[in-house]
Amino acid sequence: MPASQDIALDRCLFAKMLFQRVSRGVVTIASGSWTKVTCKCCFTDAVRPLLVIELNKEVRLETKQWIISKIEAPANKQGAQLLAHPGEDDDGDMILVAAPTCTLLRKAEAVGLSKPYRDGTMLAFSYPDRASFKNADNIEELLTLAEQQYIAKNELDDLKAGTNESIPGCSKDKGSLYPGEPIFQKLEKSGIVKTIYPLHDKEKLSAFSEQWYSQFSSWELPLDYIHSYFGGPVAFYFSFLGFYTVSLLLPAVLGAILYFLPWHSVNGHVLLAIFNVVWSTVVLELWKRRSAELAYGWGTLLLNSTFEEPRPNYRGTMGHNPVTKRWEPYFPSAERKRRIWFVSTPVVCAFLWLTVMGMVAYFYLEWCVKDYYSREPSWLSMPLLYLPSVLHILYVDFMNNVYKTVAHMLTEWENHRVESDFQKHYTLKVLVFSFINCFAVLFYIAFYKQDLELLRKRLASLLIVSQIINQVTEALVPYLLERFFPSQGTKQKEADPHIDKLRAQSCQSEYPGLFAEYIELFVQFGYLSLFSCVYPLTAALLFLNNVTEIRTDALKFCKLFRKPFVAPAANIGIWQTAFEALGFVSVISNCWLILISPQVKGYCQENGVSFRNALLCAIALEHVLIILKVVIAFVIPDLPKWVRIKVAQLEFRSRQALKTVA
Amino acid sequence: MPASQDIALDRCLFAKMLFQRVSRGVVTIASGSWTKVTCKCCFTDAVRPLLVIELNKEVRLETKQWIISKIEAPANKQGAQLLAHPGEDDDGDMILVAAPTCTLLRKAEAVGLSKPYRDGTMLAFSYPDRASFKNADNIEELLTLAEQQYIAKNELDDLKAGTNESIPGCSKDKGSLYPGEPIFQKLEKSGIVKTIYPLHDKEKLSAFSEQWYSQFSSWELPLDYIHSYFGGPVAFYFSFLGFYTVSLLLPAVLGAILYFLPWHSVNGHVLLAIFNVVWSTVVLELWKRRSAELAYGWGTLLLNSTFEEPRPNYRGTMGHNPVTKRWEPYFPSAERKRRIWFVSTPVVCAFLWLTVMGMVAYFYLEWCVKDYYSREPSWLSMPLLYLPSVLHILYVDFMNNVYKTVAHMLTEWENHRVESDFQKHYTLKVLVFSFINCFAVLFYIAFYKQDLELLRKRLASLLIVSQIINQVTEALVPYLLERFFPSQGTKQKEADPHIDKLRAQSCQSEYPGLFAEYIELFVQFGYLSLFSCVYPLTAALLFLNNVTEIRTDALKFCKLFRKPFVAPAANIGIWQTAFEALGFVSVISNCWLILISPQVKGYCQENGVSFRNALLCAIALEHVLIILKVVIAFVIPDLPKWVRIKVAQLEFRSRQALKTVA
Repeated sequence: MPASQDIALDRCLFAKMLFQRVSRGVVTIASGSWTKVTCKCCFTDAVRPLLVIELNKEVRLETKQWIISKIEAPANKQGAQLLAHPGEDDDGDMILVAAPTCTLLRKAEAVGLSKPYRDGTMLAFSYPDRASFKNADNIEELLTLAEQQYIAKNELDDLKAGTNESIPGCSKDKGSLYPGEPIFQKLEKSGIVKTIYPLHDKEKLSAFSEQWYSQFSSWELPLDYIHSYFGGPVAFYFSFLGFYTVSLLLPAVLGAILYFLPWHSVNGHVLLAIFNVVWSTVVLELWKRRSAELAYGWGTLLLNSTFEEPRPNYRGTMGHNPVTKRWEPYFPSAERKRRIWFVSTPVVCAFLWLTVMGMVAYFYLEWCVKDYYSREPSWLSMPLLYLPSVLHILYVDFMNNVYKTVAHMLTEWENHRVESDFQKHYTLKVLVFSFINCFAVLFYIAFYKQDLELLRKRLASLLIVSQIINQVTEALVPYLLERFFPSQGTKQKEADPHIDKLRAQSCQSEYPGLFAEYIELFVQFGYLSLFSCVYPLTAALLFLNNVTEIRTDALKFCKLFRKPFVAPAANIGIWQTAFEALGFVSVISNCWLILISPQVKGYCQENGVSFRNALLCAIALEHVLIILKVVIAFVIPDLPKWVRIKVAQLEFRSRQALKTVA
Repeated sequence: MPASQDIALDRCLFAKMLFQRVSRGVVTIASGSWTKVTCKCCFTDAVRPLLVIELNKEVRLETKQWIISKIEAPANKQGAQLLAHPGEDDDGDMILVAAPTCTLLRKAEAVGLSKPYRDGTMLAFSYPDRASFKNADNIEELLTLAEQQYIAKNELDDLKAGTNESIPGCSKDKGSLYPGEPIFQKLEKSGIVKTIYPLHDKEKLSAFSEQWYSQFSSWELPLDYIHSYFGGPVAFYFSFLGFYTVSLLLPAVLGAILYFLPWHSVNGHVLLAIFNVVWSTVVLELWKRRSAELAYGWGTLLLNSTFEEPRPNYRGTMGHNPVTKRWEPYFPSAERKRRIWFVSTPVVCAFLWLTVMGMVAYFYLEWCVKDYYSREPSWLSMPLLYLPSVLHILYVDFMNNVYKTVAHMLTEWENHRVESDFQKHYTLKVLVFSFINCFAVLFYIAFYKQDLELLRKRLASLLIVSQIINQVTEALVPYLLERFFPSQGTKQKEADPHIDKLRAQSCQSEYPGLFAEYIELFVQFGYLSLFSCVYPLTAALLFLNNVTEIRTDALKFCKLFRKPFVAPAANIGIWQTAFEALGFVSVISNCWLILISPQVKGYCQENGVSFRNALLCAIALEHVLIILKVVIAFVIPDLPKWVRIKVAQLEFRSRQALKTVA
């Protein structure tokens, strides 16, 4: 069945069902909004199922009805003001959720999304002035699918329990709710709701997915499509990946020239080291500008800051929140700080120490084995030579997995109130560890052993071997698994092909998040900016890797995983800082690599420059490069001129509007 | 005559005059606001003359009348909606300006001033909700004098010419106005208005000025009074000065102990260097918190960003502003950038080079003279020994004055559109030069000559001599001059003692701005954080200096200069960054001073540590200290917890309000 028919069926089903319920008088939607003539959404085919709520199979009918009533109740009755339809599958454990136009529009204003105004500029969407926006009568054009799904999810998350409310059909203990408790958090925690996920739209997806992951000839990623379908963070990830890959062309060409030229001069080496530092700074600054352009085009440059609800796992004794004065679990921040400084930090340091010790043990063991082999070379002791490497790889992998679990547990135990704080602390922990884990060996070789030949070999093998392994485990294996051993859900056919499609999506595994992808880029960027001056082919290899990476990542999003929920985003967030920090470390490593390079050493010996003076020169170079970085960052404005003017226009406009009101 | 009677007279005069004019039907104030019963300000004694506009003596009556009509016209007729009164002095060249309550309140909302709400929290003032604020019925309590004067000045600055308007009583050439041209800028440029200045209120001033500059025993500055009388930037300057002076106690005590102890160990020297770095970081971070607390209390923590009008000296061909679409002088920013990079930057660099060359010449000359004297010592050649120092001091002073003029001219020629950009570029130019001018000799001695004994002597003489000179020229001389040779204005007595007082203020010289004061602190802070580890008494000397500095500066504000106009401020602005930048440079200089100190050198020789290894240690220490600085800055939150909670409450409140509206 072609995808378009499939969707048409979706809509018909939904519209029919709603129409029946309206005519039977079942729909209890807010009269305030539904009596308006302009709000005709439930009778048009614009109603589109956005989310699926999958319930536990044991859930009783009354609980299910209560959930549906909560979803459909108007805002003034503490409802989510959405449309819910009990899925018509055999088990009856699915609820399809759609959103009426008015709910979507109101929330779009609250989130602070900008949309194209009549006169073509992007303006913060305003519900009272909605008619003045382009596509005002077509919600599908006005709000992207990702935005609609985010808004619907957000409305569900905002559902709060009233006073003396409890979940019907549940035991007293399991179903009790304190006033103001987020209902869906409780439902998920108590296992009543198994999962909530946004639905794919095969028609929309197929419109751009081919271009995205099949056409190797095409350079342009369908970013606008990606943004409207998968949402901000995903689009920003792919924009960054694409931008970074194109930026790699220059160092790739320069590196290849230096690598293949017989002429290994001092100048070439020093040039490449300085080029690396400047290049990384300029690329990150230009990316900020590109990112601002994209955010302006997508209407997310000036998002409202939102007041975040507590995380589902946030625990604490009940108390009054000092900000909102609401009665909710409260955990003193002094206690959290104590946990961070006196438990998490030492544990993280211990892990870093274990990693470094493992590395030292590896080098020692290798030295021992080589020593032994050189004394008693035999066929029998030959495999021993590989033992240290194998042991170290196993150790690193083991530590990596253990650390990630421990970091997650620690951050959970630190009990952050909001998700963004949790993510910040978790990211920081993993970043520091990844930095040490990936680069410690290279730093050890460069700074302690001072063996540039070994560094070059190690870097080359890391780039080639680990990238191949990554690609295989990341995309090929899941793809083949899915192809030849399709997951349970797709096997058992149900009567209704529509429900069948839903089931198939529900059986896909959840997308693990962009975190791992960014870490991968972070490590790549590290190899390039920290060490690539000793192995000029780095950029070229990374370029080749990323050209395929874009495709395999695209495949993951389109085929392998469930569609993720993503909030609107204005940039790549904390990762910009992480990459910039790497840039500063790269100044140190490049200056050091210049200092100890055989070319510079040879030059010093020839010209009678003492090591002391060479060292002083390297320090001077380091300080000059850091100042240069700061100057470059200062000179290149973060917003392109046209975006600056647009933003200034917006501000001027809102100030004028304020004056008129006053 | 006591001060309070003086003010009473002011008010009577004004009220009487207004009453007469109202009864004669002359007052043409906006009926919209004046017919309201609540707005009774012009008949109460709350009307207070805020500003004086001093006109050129040759101005014709019709011009004067036109100016007054513009000031008094309501907002919907493009007027400033203020109250104007032609001064009753003999020459008739003064206009007194007052502001009606409604104008003040409306503007307070536009500026984004926060005021105490009914429930005690600070809330952004809202005109429609004005009754809910404390002191709602008493404008004198609600808005400070400085705020009222700023608002009145701002209203005058906002006066724009209509289409086909021109200044009456002027030649065609001099009086022509383009539509939208700021009227008072034009009036000042064409010399019709000589000057505009805010009036002192002797009663209010005397309430706190004694405590401020006379009581040496009192530690607490009357900051709230200073804020309400002189406004944000002045209050922040004195808060910073006070905070910094108190912070000096710790290094002063530590330094004195190290100085007077016979025990000049390695540890003491290294300790003081590291202490300096950590201390400067911690003090600046704590100041940020203190500054946020003050700003919250003064209601300026969350000011609205204002759309700045072009500077009076902004020139350009007439064109449409790309942001406002208004017809006004327009100067392309590409041309400005070209001027900055290709003219200003080389000129600044040339001046820096001249300064450094002057210093080199001084050292060379001194060496020559000493050499000559050692060969032919005589009474005749003795004075020659002082020649290099005298010449260098003259040269430095000459360069300093020339540079400031050149920097001002260059920044003027760069043609910045708004005052804040102008100030930013001018400050940057002067800061860089001051840094080189003040510290070049010390850096030369420390890094090139590596003569710590000379560095110590130089620092001591700089601290003692230059500070005494500063104090004398800054405060004592103007004070004595004013006392024994009172300026012209105070001599010729007029009939009216009230007008006499005004004349006296008009004859005071304008306050030159806080720029010079901050530069002085910047240089002080530099001596302390960059070099004080070789001369531990630095902090103690600076402490003594600042204790008097606070008083002399206070005297300047209260007695010597005209009251300045100042806009509300949320912090010390660009100076925070300047001081923090100095902190980073201090890491380099302290590590270097540790490395070359005789104590460390002796320790290395004793223990057989090579210079190379000592250098590597110093570099390692530098990097560790920089990381430490960054960590300290990250760990100490910029806002104290209670301010964070207040701000979060405000945000939550406004978000709730938004929800209720939608």
